[in-house]
Amino acid sequence: MTVLEPSALAHVPFVSVANMMRLVNDVGVEAVITELADYIEADFRRWPEFDKIARVASHSHDGVIELMPVADAEYYGFKYVNGHPKNTREGFQTVTAFGVFASVGNGYPLLFTEMTLLTALRTAATSALVGRYLAPPNAKTMAMIGNGAQCEFQALAFRALCGIENVRLYDIDPDATEKATANLKTAGLNVTACQTAEAAVEGAQIITTCTADKQYATILNDNMVGAGIHINAIGGDCPGKTELHKDILTRSEIFVEYPPQTRIEGEIQQLEEDHPVTELWQVMTGDTAGRTDETQITLFDSVGFAIEDFSALRYLLDKTKGTDYAEMLDLLADPDDPRDLYGMLQRAGAGAPA
Amino acid sequence: MTVLEPSALAHVPFVSVANMMRLVNDVGVEAVITELADYIEADFRRWPEFDKIARVASHSHDGVIELMPVADAEYYGFKYVNGHPKNTREGFQTVTAFGVFASVGNGYPLLFTEMTLLTALRTAATSALVGRYLAPPNAKTMAMIGNGAQCEFQALAFRALCGIENVRLYDIDPDATEKATANLKTAGLNVTACQTAEAAVEGAQIITTCTADKQYATILNDNMVGAGIHINAIGGDCPGKTELHKDILTRSEIFVEYPPQTRIEGEIQQLEEDHPVTELWQVMTGDTAGRTDETQITLFDSVGFAIEDFSALRYLLDKTKGTDYAEMLDLLADPDDPRDLYGMLQRAGAGAPA
Repeated sequence: MTVLEPSALAHVPFVSVANMMRLVNDVGVEAVITELADYIEADFRRWPEFDKIARVASHSHDGVIELMPVADAEYYGFKYVNGHPKNTREGFQTVTAFGVFASVGNGYPLLFTEMTLLTALRTAATSALVGRYLAPPNAKTMAMIGNGAQCEFQALAFRALCGIENVRLYDIDPDATEKATANLKTAGLNVTACQTAEAAVEGAQIITTCTADKQYATILNDNMVGAGIHINAIGGDCPGKTELHKDILTRSEIFVEYPPQTRIEGEIQQLEEDHPVTELWQVMTGDTAGRTDETQITLFDSVGFAIEDFSALRYLLDKTKGTDYAEMLDLLADPDDPRDLYGMLQRAGAGAPA
Repeated sequence: MTVLEPSALAHVPFVSVANMMRLVNDVGVEAVITELADYIEADFRRWPEFDKIARVASHSHDGVIELMPVADAEYYGFKYVNGHPKNTREGFQTVTAFGVFASVGNGYPLLFTEMTLLTALRTAATSALVGRYLAPPNAKTMAMIGNGAQCEFQALAFRALCGIENVRLYDIDPDATEKATANLKTAGLNVTACQTAEAAVEGAQIITTCTADKQYATILNDNMVGAGIHINAIGGDCPGKTELHKDILTRSEIFVEYPPQTRIEGEIQQLEEDHPVTELWQVMTGDTAGRTDETQITLFDSVGFAIEDFSALRYLLDKTKGTDYAEMLDLLADPDDPRDLYGMLQRAGAGAPA
């Protein structure tokens, strides 16, 4: 039985994990994050142009599977992403992801890609981009509570975009802290491994929380957060999963991606539905103020929004076009006569050209 | 730069177009359709077990891109599908599709596959399965109005599941009818190519409409539909796209897949929101009657529902497991330590095992 060569229209460029790693290592982690931040910022600044919905979530006992679509007039992107906190205990990733970028004009996919790594990179890029608008000027020290898969990407992003030099790490699992300490020391950051969350936040101008348990947790208590701090809250990202004590929220100026989604998934699910929040895209266009004084506590209640993935896919398309970072995948049936799908099948069966 | 071999957990089986064609040709088109119909029927009979939503559509000037997710307690499936009627004029397919089947337990994809062909097969299997419940007993002749990519699959499905021997074809484009006539004659059906839709429906017990234009069209007029006919209306499947004159609808017993979706997308978008319809799954469980007398006009207002794709994915997983119909795709980042995504990236950059 001959397997026939598909035509060019049948091919969709595919970026595998191995090729994503090769691309990121060739360009450099911090350079990729910096470039991603530029794409994200550009897309946030044209926010009203996007056709947006809150992500489509399928919840089960052990986790969630989500689809995150968004489109502008030219491109359509979506990401598949799961979140299963129990997975690491069984040797699987908590979060895995892949995504597709497509043409709005004809509906054909333009790019299919792994997005586990790309999500870590775009999440870090978004956090640090937001940090550039909200963190106290000349912040040099960041506390990181939760030292899992996101930790190093966040640290490097804040170095690249905000000038962070020192990171103070804490995790309930000392092995995680040890892993992150080794990685970040090699990357040239000043790292302090701490025994408690209280110790980690000492002297930090920025606090990043990125823990994974699917529950209402209190990673930060009110007395741990002093005046002038910027909090980058990454881990609370689905209903029933939060990281901050409610009292911190009421003392903070809260910044969010897409309110309809954050009200359901973010830290602010603990607050009244009409609690005031600021939309980040309006800070980036200059329509709204970001940090207004040095005593203010600013909180990025991050849940991750589809436009960030759209920006990452748009970046990846530009970066891989015409390169060997993408392989060609025989994904789309493409008969010579578009109406003759059946004939294509028959000709393939006869071993003749499709 | 070494591209490292990914671990087994990173691999997702992928069924390409070439391999889908090889599988279908090895098994046989009608055998695949018959087996698919069994999976679809089994899933329709356990309808209440599914976590269902209407598909998530992104409409643009020239077409639509849709995501169709659905889950039971064990599996999660979704399909990406576009519909762009103008595409054929530019050498592209009107509809292309791909899909993913995943584990609800850990969120990992189990199968990634082309679904342009698989959608044609599952749509035909669903139509003929419904025909087995609703068409007049001993129907031997089917009219087919619209002779595009779906046409042959529909004809073969109705032969395999309902015993159809004669098909009467009509399309506004004579080339399409010529293409389908040649294909179906080769497949051993008695084919009559007709000059008008009126001529095509003469003597037919089943009328299948599968045209593609995105508009309110009147493919069938009321006077063309006699007593006792079963109508299999495939083409009207998005807002603003219908095929039947409203008067036919009011004379018919109407059967649908998932009412919240069909009310928006199906022929019944022409009717009041509370016009009575029967859900097919209840006919299949025996809770509700199908055809009750020989003069009744039965109408399957088909729009295509996510459970049919779920069934097709479930079938394909069973059929390809452990075979070479699926290639392994390096889609999921899988570090030795799930928390050490960054370390995996660094080790890949150093050329060491990930």
